[in-house]
Amino acid sequence: MEQLAAGQYYLIYNAFSFTIATMGAATLFFWLAMGRVNKHYQPALVVSGLVTAIACYHYFRIFGSWTGAFVVTGDDVRLSGALFNQAYRYVDWLLTVPLLMVELILVMRLSSSETTRTSLRLGGAAALMIVLGYPGEVSGGIDSTRFLWGALSMIPFLYIVYSLFAGLSRSIASQPESARGLVNLARWVVLLSWSFYPVVYFAPFVLSLEGGTSVTVIEVGYTIADLVAKALFGVLIYMIAVRKSDAEEGRAHV
Amino acid sequence: MEQLAAGQYYLIYNAFSFTIATMGAATLFFWLAMGRVNKHYQPALVVSGLVTAIACYHYFRIFGSWTGAFVVTGDDVRLSGALFNQAYRYVDWLLTVPLLMVELILVMRLSSSETTRTSLRLGGAAALMIVLGYPGEVSGGIDSTRFLWGALSMIPFLYIVYSLFAGLSRSIASQPESARGLVNLARWVVLLSWSFYPVVYFAPFVLSLEGGTSVTVIEVGYTIADLVAKALFGVLIYMIAVRKSDAEEGRAHV
Repeated sequence: MEQLAAGQYYLIYNAFSFTIATMGAATLFFWLAMGRVNKHYQPALVVSGLVTAIACYHYFRIFGSWTGAFVVTGDDVRLSGALFNQAYRYVDWLLTVPLLMVELILVMRLSSSETTRTSLRLGGAAALMIVLGYPGEVSGGIDSTRFLWGALSMIPFLYIVYSLFAGLSRSIASQPESARGLVNLARWVVLLSWSFYPVVYFAPFVLSLEGGTSVTVIEVGYTIADLVAKALFGVLIYMIAVRKSDAEEGRAHV
Repeated sequence: MEQLAAGQYYLIYNAFSFTIATMGAATLFFWLAMGRVNKHYQPALVVSGLVTAIACYHYFRIFGSWTGAFVVTGDDVRLSGALFNQAYRYVDWLLTVPLLMVELILVMRLSSSETTRTSLRLGGAAALMIVLGYPGEVSGGIDSTRFLWGALSMIPFLYIVYSLFAGLSRSIASQPESARGLVNLARWVVLLSWSFYPVVYFAPFVLSLEGGTSVTVIEVGYTIADLVAKALFGVLIYMIAVRKSDAEEGRAHV
């Protein structure tokens, strides 16, 4: 961990605390609002809430690890010697990123066998993507090791993007008209919010960032990406579930 | 407790934290998804969630005991003098392993008297298996004491395996066809994931491991076995309950 300016330290500190609150609130929303949707869509909301609950737990741990890694006296921020544990993010993603695939598949309401098959395929690719990124992240330096593992990790990512935009197109055409636009939007949110992670991962290379600035870009960048990919994406899943429930019960969507 | 390298310390640290999150999320899933299954199968999901909730609690304690047992400064990992409490695992297993038998029996929906009888028989054997393994685990050394108690503990284990594969075969034949494959799979998950525990228990003998490597193999090994035997097994119980509920309500399983 590098030396940080007080402003950088507190920006990251507040971003983490904000995320604990947002993820916790999103979890409660998804579960409390389950009665609003047809029961076929309730599993999608259960899983959306699991994703944000797991993220809430990990941001709580990340926050503790962050405050433990520094000794702050006024504007003076020094390293305490304790490690800021980067692995929390990867452990979180290993659990939540496959589940994000599952919540999208669940809200599409494919046949039971197709749901299982697609979940295993896309969930597996998502887990592989995280596992391949990790060795580069902890390699420490901004060097060829970080680059190599990052590049390998992009292969399952591109496979997921291909599956979402080529393979799932037929399934999207079978969605009720009122929900089709939102399902399509959900695909784009996956693509754009997930693309943000490799951008952050490779940012220190491209921008030749160093020290405190590099840490700030990485931590705040990943945090924003997590908020979009998990909490905002979950709200979209909820809206799709509401539209489809209404369509199935013949209620006009006003 | 032995001296550990920083990499070993943090691998175990992150494995424990990952397991807290997974067990907690699994618990919430089993309980939130109860509405999806016929009420006859809801007790199986209640018990599945109890198992992962108890494990979540114990991993929280194990995590605390782990961080308390070391003083970490940068890459320097030293013993603090506080004990890393191995007994948490056995206390956990004493509660959860009999309950794992009960959740499998509950989802099979045998007659009420058969459910009670089989639960007492297999649950009792499971508890005996744990009680017999404990003296060997805490004996400290990799010696004849560890070996003797481990061997004794295998007797109830083999009895459980025999019961699952011989005694329960008739009950499995009476399951609806759509669920039979999954029930059979659940038996195999019990056999394979439970077999992992004696493998870890005896690994220091067979591989002549010492010091930090032995600790790492034991802690990470038990943790993976717990994740499979409790969280993944619970998901399988949930899937069996869904298939059987659909079959009983005459819904085709597509």
